[in-house]
Amino acid sequence: MIVVNAIELETLIHQLFEKAGASDVVASTVARVLVEGDLLGHHTHGVKLAQGYLKDIRAGHAKVDAQRLEVVKQSPVCTLYDADYLLGPYVVSQALDATTHAARQYGVGVANIRRSHHIACLAAYLQPVTEQGLVPIVLSSDPAVASVAPYGGLDPVYTPNPLAIGIPNEGEPILIDVSMSTITNGLVNRTRQEGGQLQHEALLDNQGQPSRNPEDFFTNPPGSILPLGGLEFGHKGFALGIMVEALTSGLGGFGRKDGVSQWGAAVYVMTLDPEFFGGLAAFKAEMNHFVERCQNSRPRIQGQSVRMPGHAGLARRRRYLEEGIPLPTDVLDAVRAAAQEGGLSSPF
Amino acid sequence: MIVVNAIELETLIHQLFEKAGASDVVASTVARVLVEGDLLGHHTHGVKLAQGYLKDIRAGHAKVDAQRLEVVKQSPVCTLYDADYLLGPYVVSQALDATTHAARQYGVGVANIRRSHHIACLAAYLQPVTEQGLVPIVLSSDPAVASVAPYGGLDPVYTPNPLAIGIPNEGEPILIDVSMSTITNGLVNRTRQEGGQLQHEALLDNQGQPSRNPEDFFTNPPGSILPLGGLEFGHKGFALGIMVEALTSGLGGFGRKDGVSQWGAAVYVMTLDPEFFGGLAAFKAEMNHFVERCQNSRPRIQGQSVRMPGHAGLARRRRYLEEGIPLPTDVLDAVRAAAQEGGLSSPF
Repeated sequence: MIVVNAIELETLIHQLFEKAGASDVVASTVARVLVEGDLLGHHTHGVKLAQGYLKDIRAGHAKVDAQRLEVVKQSPVCTLYDADYLLGPYVVSQALDATTHAARQYGVGVANIRRSHHIACLAAYLQPVTEQGLVPIVLSSDPAVASVAPYGGLDPVYTPNPLAIGIPNEGEPILIDVSMSTITNGLVNRTRQEGGQLQHEALLDNQGQPSRNPEDFFTNPPGSILPLGGLEFGHKGFALGIMVEALTSGLGGFGRKDGVSQWGAAVYVMTLDPEFFGGLAAFKAEMNHFVERCQNSRPRIQGQSVRMPGHAGLARRRRYLEEGIPLPTDVLDAVRAAAQEGGLSSPF
Repeated sequence: MIVVNAIELETLIHQLFEKAGASDVVASTVARVLVEGDLLGHHTHGVKLAQGYLKDIRAGHAKVDAQRLEVVKQSPVCTLYDADYLLGPYVVSQALDATTHAARQYGVGVANIRRSHHIACLAAYLQPVTEQGLVPIVLSSDPAVASVAPYGGLDPVYTPNPLAIGIPNEGEPILIDVSMSTITNGLVNRTRQEGGQLQHEALLDNQGQPSRNPEDFFTNPPGSILPLGGLEFGHKGFALGIMVEALTSGLGGFGRKDGVSQWGAAVYVMTLDPEFFGGLAAFKAEMNHFVERCQNSRPRIQGQSVRMPGHAGLARRRRYLEEGIPLPTDVLDAVRAAAQEGGLSSPF
């Protein structure tokens, strides 16, 4: 682990994407979103991803030209994009700008993105929108990947299908970013690399036996990740995964049926403006009251009081901005390799 | 258990609400939605509720006059209603009509309802909208009730906060109606009445011990229901519960902070029109492909193939419409009591 300065890290990532052909606005957006992932503590979905993105650019699988983002269909409140695998952080940021603009005029804006490249850490997009007093929602699935089994089945069909929502509050905003499966592909991969066992039986092996062993996921035929709710209540996580599938690939009309094999994402983006409903002040007052009641709930384990989603990440973010980001070894290795492959010397 | 004809049942419920002062349109909507709940097999949220609704009408806690539904704020796509505790099935149906109209013109419509009376079975609202090729979403919380504990806490703060979405498909639509908690208040109540134990440890007693005993929920201080995900992954169910809380009570600006004590609901309603995105045909083709892949996933338990949400309910519905609805004894007792209290003789 090495502690790195957030601005220096962002500068390096920016330079790497510019050197790979991205314009200033694309490179700066990607660098900002990736570093934001690490600032919030999501190191599997931060700058570690840069190496893979840059490889995909060199292979022609990821695009860097902002012009690739095509508006396929548009109403005053809804936009359908085709991104031709343009880098996801730029694509999602553009969609959030469009839905924010629509929300300010109509109360809500919705965008759907076909064929985005990977979109990194969903939580990283939220705070710039909640700071404007708006409620952003981002859903994502990857039609090229099947890792989660439908409830009752044991062959994987879909992805963890994360859902993120930012909730303005009188105090800190609530930043939610959760998958509709018990665990993510990233955690399975990392646990396997570390040679460990998962904390819970979140996998099924390819014969349907619950397992904590990440190796059971990589067999042939493959194992699978259990939907949120597991063996007991997994019908609910499965249902929520279907919801994300419908609003991303379904609404975009492009997904698994099209035999996609390329790393990427189908994305649903929505922004709501509370001023068109009960007003921002009442919204914040209601959420603040809710947060207080949650925090006043006696802790189940002595000394471990209730934490609101995102608050630990925001505290970490403040600390990391001041003191630097403690990057895990695997992340640092990936950044150094990306720098070397990109012909830059890493300052870390 | 007695098998009753759906039309006769709907007629009786309609008459009861008309006799209680509801206009024809309010009474018929309430009757249709309640019977629809039983047709789909959700007997805790079907006609059994009529007795409580009618009691609340007599006590002045539920309103029957359609004029009570006030539009507080409106844009071409968003509507904020205050329902003054008008019967929920009528209120939600009106909101769905408004959002459907907006979705046809702009691609999306959103409504938020403050102070609705109880809204019954969320799944019951979906099929009339999916049959129009649209995607309805309904979220609900009850600010007067606290039964679910925040993750890490043991004092209950909020409600199961269900989420429903209807997904058009080439074959049967997918009808999702799931709570963001492991189980619902209704199941805890029913299990207690039956004197049984819950199937899983979905409760915490008031000292934080996991429990299958419904009596542990009714102590003083009370026990609580675990969020979806339970002790292992309950931070995700908690996050999703907060999302529902934010889009219902938060967006409406009215909820727990206002010290509500009356049976009712804060509701979020949204309708999306796929034609403003990738088109309905592509939407259905994508979802159909997804359903096929799920159904082709080998079953975990031999002979129990993967079921899509809502399909068992829709099969039940077809059978019940032909052969009659087999009403459980507790439902029948409640209907008979409601008829007697309303001065009508029950034909069942």
